[in-house]
Amino acid sequence: MPQKAFQDYYPEYFAHCYGCGSLNEVGNQLKSFWEGDETVAYFQPKPYHTAIPGYVYGGLLASLIDCHGTGTAAAAGYRAENREMDTEPPLRYLTASLHVDYLKPTPLGPVLEVRGRVKEVKGRKVSVEEWIVVNGMVTVRGELVAVQVPESLVKELLQG
Amino acid sequence: MPQKAFQDYYPEYFAHCYGCGSLNEVGNQLKSFWEGDETVAYFQPKPYHTAIPGYVYGGLLASLIDCHGTGTAAAAGYRAENREMDTEPPLRYLTASLHVDYLKPTPLGPVLEVRGRVKEVKGRKVSVEEWIVVNGMVTVRGELVAVQVPESLVKELLQG
Repeated sequence: MPQKAFQDYYPEYFAHCYGCGSLNEVGNQLKSFWEGDETVAYFQPKPYHTAIPGYVYGGLLASLIDCHGTGTAAAAGYRAENREMDTEPPLRYLTASLHVDYLKPTPLGPVLEVRGRVKEVKGRKVSVEEWIVVNGMVTVRGELVAVQVPESLVKELLQG
Repeated sequence: MPQKAFQDYYPEYFAHCYGCGSLNEVGNQLKSFWEGDETVAYFQPKPYHTAIPGYVYGGLLASLIDCHGTGTAAAAGYRAENREMDTEPPLRYLTASLHVDYLKPTPLGPVLEVRGRVKEVKGRKVSVEEWIVVNGMVTVRGELVAVQVPESLVKELLQG
């Protein structure tokens, strides 16, 4: 059976994200998976995702680091509790802080490989390091701190 | 005469950016201006720029910090040389690093006010601090380091 993406376990109220929500029809619909102890997502930028001609727009790269990071945080939260992503209670994360280093311009054209590694799971907080590979070259490094969504906000969304 | 946006001084090869290029028809077309010693840009998110329902997608917020930051860097570079943005030689900047702290969820609906303040202009490098205000509340703080585009890359773009 093919592996299900982290984002495909998100409940309906979490599936509208422009970056990774399966219900956001105009969004990027990023899909992240485990690959051993690392996580990976592949993304094909559109021709209009330009920074300067021939290179990928930095805001898109930051967005990929963001959504792959929160996805990785969720997956890591379940792994830390030694349970599957479809078990209760659900663990949902939001980005608290995001850092992106643009090491060199990222060529626009090839599929981008977004990779993640969990640095720490501590209480409600997960730290993830990430990097983007294109043509075998690391062009971007990122770091993200995600925090579990407060129950009060989940309640508000469910009533929404 | 109304003030011209920083991005409207960018030459053609710099005007395709998805975040702020005036020639990118599907992009965000961000426009940044001086307001005393600070810079400001206003942006109306689209209904599909969702994170969780009712709140703005973090990747868009990072993108606004990115493009308003490089725009501010360019404007600051000219100010440091005490000349107007339409004078030669042109100064163009790319993001070297981007840091974004999401202080609280940003409500989706109102116009966002993206503000910037130049921290340092040092050689080819400009540091900018930024924040996003919505409904009178600061929801995001960011910091960006931009570097002047190398002449070799400009040459490549002009030949491209």
